[in-house]
Amino acid sequence: MDIAPIRWEERNVTAIKGPGGRWMIPPDAKESMDRSKIGLKGPLKTPIAAGHPSMNLLLRKTFDLYANVRPCISIEGYKTPYTDVNLVTIRENTEGEYSGIEHVIVDGVVQSIKLITENASRRIAEYAFEYARNNQRSSVTAVHKANIMRMSDGLFLRKCREVAENYKDVKFTEMYLDTVCLNMVQDPTQFDVLVMPNLYGDILSDLCAGLIGGLGVTPSGNIGANGVAIFESVHGTAPDIAGMDLANPTALLLSAVMMLRHMGLHDYGNKIQTACFDTIRDKKVLTKDLGGNSKCSEFTADICRRVQDLD
Amino acid sequence: MDIAPIRWEERNVTAIKGPGGRWMIPPDAKESMDRSKIGLKGPLKTPIAAGHPSMNLLLRKTFDLYANVRPCISIEGYKTPYTDVNLVTIRENTEGEYSGIEHVIVDGVVQSIKLITENASRRIAEYAFEYARNNQRSSVTAVHKANIMRMSDGLFLRKCREVAENYKDVKFTEMYLDTVCLNMVQDPTQFDVLVMPNLYGDILSDLCAGLIGGLGVTPSGNIGANGVAIFESVHGTAPDIAGMDLANPTALLLSAVMMLRHMGLHDYGNKIQTACFDTIRDKKVLTKDLGGNSKCSEFTADICRRVQDLD
Ligand SMILES: CC(C)[C@H](C(=O)O)[C@@H](O)C(=O)O
Ligand SMILES: CC(C)[C@H](C(=O)O)[C@@H](O)C(=O)O
Repeated sequence: MDIAPIRWEERNVTAIKGPGGRWMIPPDAKESMDRSKIGLKGPLKTPIAAGHPSMNLLLRKTFDLYANVRPCISIEGYKTPYTDVNLVTIRENTEGEYSGIEHVIVDGVVQSIKLITENASRRIAEYAFEYARNNQRSSVTAVHKANIMRMSDGLFLRKCREVAENYKDVKFTEMYLDTVCLNMVQDPTQFDVLVMPNLYGDILSDLCAGLIGGLGVTPSGNIGANGVAIFESVHGTAPDIAGMDLANPTALLLSAVMMLRHMGLHDYGNKIQTACFDTIRDKKVLTKDLGGNSKCSEFTADICRRVQDLD
Repeated sequence: MDIAPIRWEERNVTAIKGPGGRWMIPPDAKESMDRSKIGLKGPLKTPIAAGHPSMNLLLRKTFDLYANVRPCISIEGYKTPYTDVNLVTIRENTEGEYSGIEHVIVDGVVQSIKLITENASRRIAEYAFEYARNNQRSSVTAVHKANIMRMSDGLFLRKCREVAENYKDVKFTEMYLDTVCLNMVQDPTQFDVLVMPNLYGDILSDLCAGLIGGLGVTPSGNIGANGVAIFESVHGTAPDIAGMDLANPTALLLSAVMMLRHMGLHDYGNKIQTACFDTIRDKKVLTKDLGGNSKCSEFTADICRRVQDLD
């Protein structure tokens, strides 16, 4: 069998306390990422312990992973109330409501600061339009609440509009977040690429994952500058079934497919995706959460067998 | 026919510029509301013109309508991908992301302030638990992102927990907003009463409306202190069909039903609701958006006839 030309380095990214007591990614993990630029991350428990930072947030910050990309595509044979969903949420991953800046003004009065910058907004808008163009997608919708947050979401929206001017081949629309949510559950097929500030992306990407079957089948990529990227399944560690060979590896596998495509290894990625979808459509070897009775290892073996057949 | 003991006063609430150039509700409308305490509001165009404030926001502010209540209940005969939805979103309506406080920090860097107070959080939590108790509902879920906005959503959540202590007859749970969205589209029947800060309520209430058929069939109430309340359909004015006798009055009618119940006139409310749902279930006289061919006036006449039959 033809094996994808990847040399794996395994690193533990669990944060440690560095100089000055600041949480950081262990130096050997950081060094490996800086060199290889590409990571495939397993599910992490968040937070690992009281006081420990969110590993997701720390990784995004350490490697400036500014774009969180989640394709949500209906999987044939895996029934949900929706069919033909085929959209991608692109979430600004570095600022907005996740600034971490909060204050107690007086006793009983607290403020959190949502920070929107021109640079981060332009950067994510450009990413979204490039993504649309490079992935044969025809429209980008900017999701916002600029009717309420006129300055912050207003700035975000303005940058989207400006960037849209440079991509006349891609249709640009704007929609309020609440309207998107309403329309999304009524007819998700009307959406294509959606781009939005951090929190809205957190919400909408999970909502969309729900439409196609949940986090167990939804891949994700976190993209930084200069080709840096970490791909991951978004679900947790499911400690209740740890070590029982019951987990569904689909989300991680599809994230690996995204990774291969990101590296230009489309053929390898396509094969694995086809094999995975064939196994699911076939319904004979499925993990419990997918409606079957098979072990994780049996499910994976079925996919591997199909990959070989496709060779 | 027995007519509900209501004396209607009709007032135009369109904001005018008051002393010092501040937008305000016209004094005669304000006076009428202050006296009667109860309003039924028709759909409003927002914004009416550039520079004009959102009427919804101005009304909420003027009358301190702190709780936005939206029951989302599946309507028999009106098919959506979901059945047996029966939940209520209770949205804090006065602060949070809607504070209106925004700044340009330096060129290209903008901040919006989310303001959470102990008082408003306690007040909305108390409203939610009272609502649950008085409406035979068994659980309240606090929706938050306290993993990210630790201080602001943290305060909100703490107040919910404290208030929950006084309502041992109502089950209390907490859930991240993203998790709620995911679970909501997968199985909305697991939810009962949900309480949350302003923006999350904006999003979630529209999402839930989508599950049962959209804004055309979803009532809403805005509740203030001392019995003050304004009930409204949440949809817009649909200017494209204005004057054509095509609108679907269900959302406004069900809002009126909420109003009657709020006033203690349960029998009147129940009759209208039963008649309205019977008309929809019967499928013979339906407006276009409900899947029929009837005029608004015919739809309404059918409901009125049924109300009379119920007398
Ligand atoms: C775990 C949490 C910090 C994170 C977030 O809120 O961004 C998660 O929900 C996600 O979407 O990756
Ligand atoms: C019209 C707009 C200001 C409003 C909001 O964002 O609150 C609307 O979406 C609502 O839910 O009433």
